[in-house]
Amino acid sequence: MRRYGTIVFLFLLFFSLHFKSQKTEKLYQYVNPLIGTEKMGHTYPGATAPFGAVQLSPETDTIAYELNGKYNGEVYKYCAGYRYEDKTIVGFSSTHFSGTGHSDLGDFLIMPTIGKLQLNSGTADHPENGYRSSFSHTNEKAEAGYYQVKLDDHDILAELTSTTRVGVHRYTFPKSDQAHIIFDLMAGIYNYDGKNIWTYVRVENGNTVTGYRQTNGWARTRTVYFAMKFSKPFKSYGQKNYDGKLVYNGFWRKFDQTKNFPEIAGKNLKMYFDFDTEENEAIEIKLAISPVSQANALENLEKEAGKLSFDQVKAQTQEIWNNELNKIVIKGSDTEKTNFYTAMYHTFINPTTYMDANGEYKGLDQNIHRAENFTNYTTFSLWDTYRALHPFFNIIQPKRNGDMVKSMIAHYDQFSMKMLPIWSHYANDNWCMSGYHSVSVVADAIIKGNYDGDAKAALRACVATANKKDYEGIGQYIDWGYIPSEKNGTSVSNTLEYAYDDWAIAQLAKHLGETEIYTQFIKRSENWKNNFDKSTGFMRPRLADGSFKKDFNPLSTHGQGFIEGNSWNYTFFVPHNPDELIQLMGGKKKFASKVDELFTMHLPDEFFADTEDITREGIIGGYVHGNEPAHHVAYLYNWAGQPWKTQAQIRRILEMQYKATPDGLGGNDDAGQMSAWYILSSLGFYPVAPGSEEYAIGSPAIDHAVLNLENGKIFEIEAIHQSPKNVYVEKILLNGKEIKNFSLKHSDIMNGGKLSFFMSAKAKK
Amino acid sequence: MRRYGTIVFLFLLFFSLHFKSQKTEKLYQYVNPLIGTEKMGHTYPGATAPFGAVQLSPETDTIAYELNGKYNGEVYKYCAGYRYEDKTIVGFSSTHFSGTGHSDLGDFLIMPTIGKLQLNSGTADHPENGYRSSFSHTNEKAEAGYYQVKLDDHDILAELTSTTRVGVHRYTFPKSDQAHIIFDLMAGIYNYDGKNIWTYVRVENGNTVTGYRQTNGWARTRTVYFAMKFSKPFKSYGQKNYDGKLVYNGFWRKFDQTKNFPEIAGKNLKMYFDFDTEENEAIEIKLAISPVSQANALENLEKEAGKLSFDQVKAQTQEIWNNELNKIVIKGSDTEKTNFYTAMYHTFINPTTYMDANGEYKGLDQNIHRAENFTNYTTFSLWDTYRALHPFFNIIQPKRNGDMVKSMIAHYDQFSMKMLPIWSHYANDNWCMSGYHSVSVVADAIIKGNYDGDAKAALRACVATANKKDYEGIGQYIDWGYIPSEKNGTSVSNTLEYAYDDWAIAQLAKHLGETEIYTQFIKRSENWKNNFDKSTGFMRPRLADGSFKKDFNPLSTHGQGFIEGNSWNYTFFVPHNPDELIQLMGGKKKFASKVDELFTMHLPDEFFADTEDITREGIIGGYVHGNEPAHHVAYLYNWAGQPWKTQAQIRRILEMQYKATPDGLGGNDDAGQMSAWYILSSLGFYPVAPGSEEYAIGSPAIDHAVLNLENGKIFEIEAIHQSPKNVYVEKILLNGKEIKNFSLKHSDIMNGGKLSFFMSAKAKK
Repeated sequence: MRRYGTIVFLFLLFFSLHFKSQKTEKLYQYVNPLIGTEKMGHTYPGATAPFGAVQLSPETDTIAYELNGKYNGEVYKYCAGYRYEDKTIVGFSSTHFSGTGHSDLGDFLIMPTIGKLQLNSGTADHPENGYRSSFSHTNEKAEAGYYQVKLDDHDILAELTSTTRVGVHRYTFPKSDQAHIIFDLMAGIYNYDGKNIWTYVRVENGNTVTGYRQTNGWARTRTVYFAMKFSKPFKSYGQKNYDGKLVYNGFWRKFDQTKNFPEIAGKNLKMYFDFDTEENEAIEIKLAISPVSQANALENLEKEAGKLSFDQVKAQTQEIWNNELNKIVIKGSDTEKTNFYTAMYHTFINPTTYMDANGEYKGLDQNIHRAENFTNYTTFSLWDTYRALHPFFNIIQPKRNGDMVKSMIAHYDQFSMKMLPIWSHYANDNWCMSGYHSVSVVADAIIKGNYDGDAKAALRACVATANKKDYEGIGQYIDWGYIPSEKNGTSVSNTLEYAYDDWAIAQLAKHLGETEIYTQFIKRSENWKNNFDKSTGFMRPRLADGSFKKDFNPLSTHGQGFIEGNSWNYTFFVPHNPDELIQLMGGKKKFASKVDELFTMHLPDEFFADTEDITREGIIGGYVHGNEPAHHVAYLYNWAGQPWKTQAQIRRILEMQYKATPDGLGGNDDAGQMSAWYILSSLGFYPVAPGSEEYAIGSPAIDHAVLNLENGKIFEIEAIHQSPKNVYVEKILLNGKEIKNFSLKHSDIMNGGKLSFFMSAKAKK
Repeated sequence: MRRYGTIVFLFLLFFSLHFKSQKTEKLYQYVNPLIGTEKMGHTYPGATAPFGAVQLSPETDTIAYELNGKYNGEVYKYCAGYRYEDKTIVGFSSTHFSGTGHSDLGDFLIMPTIGKLQLNSGTADHPENGYRSSFSHTNEKAEAGYYQVKLDDHDILAELTSTTRVGVHRYTFPKSDQAHIIFDLMAGIYNYDGKNIWTYVRVENGNTVTGYRQTNGWARTRTVYFAMKFSKPFKSYGQKNYDGKLVYNGFWRKFDQTKNFPEIAGKNLKMYFDFDTEENEAIEIKLAISPVSQANALENLEKEAGKLSFDQVKAQTQEIWNNELNKIVIKGSDTEKTNFYTAMYHTFINPTTYMDANGEYKGLDQNIHRAENFTNYTTFSLWDTYRALHPFFNIIQPKRNGDMVKSMIAHYDQFSMKMLPIWSHYANDNWCMSGYHSVSVVADAIIKGNYDGDAKAALRACVATANKKDYEGIGQYIDWGYIPSEKNGTSVSNTLEYAYDDWAIAQLAKHLGETEIYTQFIKRSENWKNNFDKSTGFMRPRLADGSFKKDFNPLSTHGQGFIEGNSWNYTFFVPHNPDELIQLMGGKKKFASKVDELFTMHLPDEFFADTEDITREGIIGGYVHGNEPAHHVAYLYNWAGQPWKTQAQIRRILEMQYKATPDGLGGNDDAGQMSAWYILSSLGFYPVAPGSEEYAIGSPAIDHAVLNLENGKIFEIEAIHQSPKNVYVEKILLNGKEIKNFSLKHSDIMNGGKLSFFMSAKAKK
């Protein structure tokens, strides 16, 4: 009966995919996951389904976090596991972050080899000394939901695809009686001695293996369970334990546990599975993960991929990708489409699904919960993504974004600290970066009508988070209106960002008729003024005695009270009240000149050096696009009465910072924020202050786009005469009616209709 | 509604307990848990409910498994955490083994202190340098389900009681503004560096704390979850992390995590909770454990003790003990009752309940299972307990014993190796000791009608276990009929025990009509003959070439192919076929002389030294009662036609090996086996070969006993004229009919009736 149900399900799924594909363009062909894999993009090239729990991707190295007891700067380059610059691949692991500037994960590294069994990975210079292999980009192909590479040293073709929770590997071997699958359970991203807390493996039968990997990393307490099925039974298997001395060895005395022994556990383990292969024989491995249990992992495997071949999974996932990408259909050159759909792809892989096929997940209280009527997500890089990624989702993925808010509220409910997430993954908060920006995501989603949960409870969670007095200077911020720079290394960033976040809370309170909360938080939202130094015209750290910090340098990022941005970039961070900022800075003209200066100045090398996460190409003048704090700044010209400068700068940024090449991203993609900025800006508008229903209009870089909205409506954008030269907006019509204030409402989009830009080479001053 | 239900439940419970107590004697007052806590008994004095999951008991030290990198022999003395010889107590932990010869557990050590906060335990010589305290036995009281001690250094009265899953502490403080509860999550029994895998603690609110402790010990992969409620909110709390460097410290940068920070995790943690106390103020702590989750631990706490005070829990548990102990009501002196009921107490605390109040438990596959219609048990020390403990349960705890068999079958089903347990606890097998004796327990329970599961499936599990060719020489045993001593350090023990176990399987097969299996295993059960050396008259190691080992010494325990016994003790290990052994050894007379020699010889110091787990008092001549292999030997005189020698020796062993004092046990109580031997032998009969329905009759040491059987029947035993001198059986009447063969059938007992012994000072030859 269940089997019959599965068949019916698959039939309906294929039918529906097939039916939809009649209407949709094959857009996944424009996705190039290799974009951003070189230099600072930190994207991964492997296979994933939209918002998938699995990110099955190659590692070009698994280097240690520490070298000779000190932080190894090189590890940063391997945030996504893969560097386009590298010449060797060490294997394919199941979990990756996309575009982050710190890292974790890299679970369950698998590598196919032939010949002598080698359990160490070898070095990049001497891949022959380990299981790794040389590879060449000419033998590499990356698509949405599919990746392949030839492993030269082993003469093996490696292919990857994935469902939401099941990574599928296919390795095509030469003829060999010494074919191996290495299963390196010590490998991981941002690996350090002691990170592997415990590993358990159980060989269930001749082709099924389950277990878990427990780590103490960026997520402090994290366990990922797996279930793995080989398409062909292994002829033998074994393990090596690298823990050193085993104090109680009774377990070892009774058996030879190194070979064909099905109960394997320890802190540091590697395994291998042996096969005989015929020429061109393919071995497929389905590896499902679960945050809950091996049983759930096995259920995920069976439900999502049990009956499917590699090719079927690939076809299915690429169709799902196609449907997602068809939510925006653009006209343009292949390069434009590649840029656009790769950006969409990069926005649709974060946050990640964090629950099993049966709805269960492990919460922050370490208990098992069931997501009732929503998909639970994790990987919330909120300092980045509140800006454009979640606002983008409010337009194009409103259901998912509502579920992401539900996930955040669940996080709040389950967390002993009663705080919304700061930077969370796998039921942990790593507290990375400043602000408490989940309140912005919550407010924006509710205000835009995308949350069907208890909105007042959500508001309470926002207020509780914002009132956590012992967190990152919030106490002083509330009591004094600013954070003394002696007390907090990122005092100015925090004050500015808290002020914006408080404004978002106020908007939500207003929306819900909570006047008292509104009054309280709208007042707090003015706190940014307390760090504004009129004498220099910059946001400037302030001491406990009320005076401004003496040795202040607005070019420097470190030791000045900012994070990932200097005062030059942060001074404009009043997204919720540009008018008053402009006024404080001496009026529109003076303000616009200062923004001009930002875009044209030269950032000396010494100060560039301490700007994190970006390449030289990631800045324009002193404007750092590779980091987020100034992402809205180019749009502020609109407020200064010089919208043509917004238009010109936006086009400049789009052109300079996003290229359809592996090194095409000027900085970390930051879990999709950079890509979301690209999509929205290239469509012609941007949410300067999420929580507001207004979008600032910039300059569309795409001739034509159709937004297929979830509510069934269609919003069409045309940019007539748009070209690299015609970057200026001459006229804007919304459903034939002219827009003059360079502002678009959320409802204007969601109601469907047509937005027509008339573009020109001449600025309309 | 639920609250109302709980009240009704409690009312009914108390009513029923009260009602029962009308009929029952207050037998729990004869239990002295301090018996066996000195020297080699390895029992613990603390509070536990019958077969409880919690064993809440004091630790007199928590010493390291290793000293200067080598095994620290001292650790062995602390198998149960407590040594009567010691002068200080370090705290009270929730889990303990009773009477084992290796150890683990000691989870969640709690210690109340006043004055300066000290997180180290201090030393026995200088308790003032740490949180430990001096104590005196004059201020100590141990009862079934209750323990109290005065902690002299802190002027605190400590009391413990427990339900099945909830330990309840009560600490009565002096007036202090510096009262502390130390919660040492690094402490444990058989602790070694790296044993603590991970610890997680979550402060849920002002008086509730949950978390887990994960260890790699005798149980290789083990996590115990807890939920703890204080009767009074703490005024503050804090932690110290002893992990050394924390590689990712983002979590630490944002908060002061040492004080009042509710999310705590690491490998090596200690915590403390601060209180202000009035003079004689009692603080109660309820600490529930779960093998599944914190949520389940909390549910256990609420269900079992949520509404009860310390005194109510104590009263309830002691009533439950009383009901259990009333299953056998004896007449005798206080000392006899103390010996008898303490032995019963010691048999009724192992195995331990291993499932939550909701029926869930973590299985060997690391998945969560639910025990359907049975109680799942763990702590199976089967090499010890198959002999007398489980047979005793087949008489007096048949339902529980059936459930224990179900627990073993669940173990088998969930274990990747498909083997019944050898020595298992907390969903792990540590493979300790020889044989595969769970087959004996399974066979005996089924044959005696105490298993309502699938008996044929149970037989299949027995057969599969016995055919595990790569385990401990089974392959050679099957193929050659013995295990070559070059291949296996305990080749003779294993061969002899496998042979008996195979006979048990054969009995089960016969019982189930599985003739083919019967034939196969009854043949295997003769393999003991292959190690019998006619030239010396001893069981003797044999080499692969078929010859007997040259440098053979029947007095030596080590290096001779035996475990916890020399050839002198093991030579008689053919419990299933004494007749043929007697024949091989030269007939009844010669055989009896050899047993005489065993009981009268002198075991030289050099050979005693390598006899494990016992004191000098634990041997009689060369007969080692402190270990198990010869536990049946005194009964073999019955087969040799000299039952009066059985009678005399049994009385001698009962008198010499069991005393109502802390040092009263001559060896490890071995999870109740030694105590079960005591009970059965003092009742007058013993199961020489479990799997047989026959008991060998010895010499009852109790004037009168009533066995209140679960089936509602009553079996009465009287020993007329019994006295320390009148140890010989003159006549035996079963329901008035004389028994002449010194054998009693299981059904004779279970059908109810009366067994009358007529005792005399003169042997009836």
